[in-house]
Amino acid sequence: MTTARSWLASAQDSPFGVHNLPYGVFSTAARPGRRRIGVRIGDFVLDAGGAARAAGVPSVLLDADSLGPLLAAGRPAWAQIRAGLTAWLTDETYRNALSPLLVPVAEATMHLPFEVADYVDFYASEHHATNLGRIFRPGAEPLTPNWKHLPIGYHGRAGTVVVSGTPVVRPHGQRKAPTDAVPDFGPTRRLDIEAEVGFVVGTPSELGTPVPMDGFAEHVFGVCLVNDWSARDIQAWEYVPLGPFLGKSFATSVSPWIVPLEALEHARVAPPARDVEPLPYLDDRGGEPWGLDIAMEVRLNGHTVSRPPFATMYWTGAQQLAQMTANGASLRTGDLFASGTVSGPAKETRGALIELTWNGEDPVKLPDGSTRAFLENDDEVTITATAPGPDGAVIGFGEVTGRVLP
Amino acid sequence: MTTARSWLASAQDSPFGVHNLPYGVFSTAARPGRRRIGVRIGDFVLDAGGAARAAGVPSVLLDADSLGPLLAAGRPAWAQIRAGLTAWLTDETYRNALSPLLVPVAEATMHLPFEVADYVDFYASEHHATNLGRIFRPGAEPLTPNWKHLPIGYHGRAGTVVVSGTPVVRPHGQRKAPTDAVPDFGPTRRLDIEAEVGFVVGTPSELGTPVPMDGFAEHVFGVCLVNDWSARDIQAWEYVPLGPFLGKSFATSVSPWIVPLEALEHARVAPPARDVEPLPYLDDRGGEPWGLDIAMEVRLNGHTVSRPPFATMYWTGAQQLAQMTANGASLRTGDLFASGTVSGPAKETRGALIELTWNGEDPVKLPDGSTRAFLENDDEVTITATAPGPDGAVIGFGEVTGRVLP
Repeated sequence: MTTARSWLASAQDSPFGVHNLPYGVFSTAARPGRRRIGVRIGDFVLDAGGAARAAGVPSVLLDADSLGPLLAAGRPAWAQIRAGLTAWLTDETYRNALSPLLVPVAEATMHLPFEVADYVDFYASEHHATNLGRIFRPGAEPLTPNWKHLPIGYHGRAGTVVVSGTPVVRPHGQRKAPTDAVPDFGPTRRLDIEAEVGFVVGTPSELGTPVPMDGFAEHVFGVCLVNDWSARDIQAWEYVPLGPFLGKSFATSVSPWIVPLEALEHARVAPPARDVEPLPYLDDRGGEPWGLDIAMEVRLNGHTVSRPPFATMYWTGAQQLAQMTANGASLRTGDLFASGTVSGPAKETRGALIELTWNGEDPVKLPDGSTRAFLENDDEVTITATAPGPDGAVIGFGEVTGRVLP
Repeated sequence: MTTARSWLASAQDSPFGVHNLPYGVFSTAARPGRRRIGVRIGDFVLDAGGAARAAGVPSVLLDADSLGPLLAAGRPAWAQIRAGLTAWLTDETYRNALSPLLVPVAEATMHLPFEVADYVDFYASEHHATNLGRIFRPGAEPLTPNWKHLPIGYHGRAGTVVVSGTPVVRPHGQRKAPTDAVPDFGPTRRLDIEAEVGFVVGTPSELGTPVPMDGFAEHVFGVCLVNDWSARDIQAWEYVPLGPFLGKSFATSVSPWIVPLEALEHARVAPPARDVEPLPYLDDRGGEPWGLDIAMEVRLNGHTVSRPPFATMYWTGAQQLAQMTANGASLRTGDLFASGTVSGPAKETRGALIELTWNGEDPVKLPDGSTRAFLENDDEVTITATAPGPDGAVIGFGEVTGRVLP
């Protein structure tokens, strides 16, 4: 399988070659109300339901307006459908039947690919947590005492998860600088991004039954990119003692393409050494850990400002899943959990402006001569990523992008 | 309308008289797979879809297996349907047609009445927040500096909201006493309850557009009771800096009956005086505030341990809604937001064991001679509530109950 090549020219040497095959939901201008499942291949979106019909194996999982039914179908169905897509896109026999079902990427409007059930955001980068600790709690230990014992997480707002390209309206809220006597209310002055990786749950689990780390591939369908937009002034004032709320809940953007977990088999790497012994339910040192070598890039108005390395994350997705369900909490199809900001050890690998600019003290310089401590109106932020595939292939995640509106 | 009486004997002088008419979803042993919308009246559940058909006005909103379509229909539809139900249950003409559609409460199995979209939990009782501040942060100001400026809240897990009667499995998690060097993993030793009131959102709102306080009745369909089960040892170790997560997400129980907001018109009272001037978007002092005189009762193994008075809440549901959307976050049909623990000023009005027993130091005594610092296996907790209706009528909320399993 790893040496297969597509009959589609633009799939050769593409981050969307036959080893990737990410899923999304698209429509076209000709039929704007008709949402269909699409599979990205080269510079095209393959109408997946149509392709299955053309191949003589119609699929209710692919003939849908959301990835929901496919997500719910479970790992064996995912493998079977992926094998079918791979065959159809590599076997010349299918070229004539499938070619009319290829929509140029530029003609496809992408939609939120599934209904988000619960959204959980973790805090799994040691570099990010250390930087934020130093900024928010100067003089104290940067990491809280629990940090190396468990992946810290919290629930976010599922209803405001939006697809890449959705504009982000600058949120209003209560802002209070340490020097102010009382808060005032108005648009955030410290609008930020967080470059993250998100995991999409397919197979649900029973209430009362934890999912161990080795259940990761059974329950997780795939991976996307996440921009967890953050209003730092709102967040700083509200977050004690119950955590982030309105500083985050105005919008969370996700990339339109969900990269199947199977496409990331060659991206698996060992996570960093753990300097505190994990409790057994989080101890992946004797198993097959789920570190992932995903190279991310953050662009602000087209200019690259950071290259966060996901391989440096202290806690893996499998550990996050085990933690999230350790108390018996059930999973639902469509649950989304994100890694938290991905920041590496070097300054130019930090995944949030608050770290890149050190709380605004050291603004980012853009090629047009302007600087940014935080985001201004009309700024556009784009996060992209790639991971290694088989035989030198590159697995592309596409992008998650958004522009700030006043 | 306020003097209307039902032709149903058991509805007379009942907390489920014609001034209440709460909605739920039920099935019967004869047809266990058939979920229907029911309206509680006296000692019966009225098959609401059947009643509409019998009355000659079939309704797709009532002929459903969930309250979802009704919730989404909006305030004018809610008023129209409530007027119809009131007419059918008070006008003798309908007695013969509707009587066969009355199912004795004991024969109805109640289900989760709607799919919870996002679940938000507030922290709106000054007495509760003060007590917890004293317990968790001794020596410091009990209320955080933001507390009187905004209703503090956080997102909880929507997927583990369960209907009353669902057993609660004692959750496992990391526990670390201040005297322990490292955490261990095991069943919580400090399982607690939180007696709360929940608000059910019907009408959605647009992303980017805040809902002001006077939009409360347009968007909120009704009110239920909530038990926000809490594992205090897990919570204490995990909650800094991102708030409660696994200490709460194992289960949140809700009462099966949603009391329509219209049924609470006579329960409206002025909230407590605010000693910090609210910012304009939260300032209800010149309007018609949404304080609600709901008298709650908490029973542990049948013994009343507390009577929390909802009228003492510092922040109202309307303020919570305005806060939750102030940043432009959208509402979805099925969003549930809860008040946080309801605690009054007196010890016997505190809505959580951690307060009632002052962190376990002063256990609750039960009639069988046993005591409780926190919940033991097989303990059953039941929360009930009533509110004043018109002409001396009482509006009942029914109960939210749950038993602890090992």
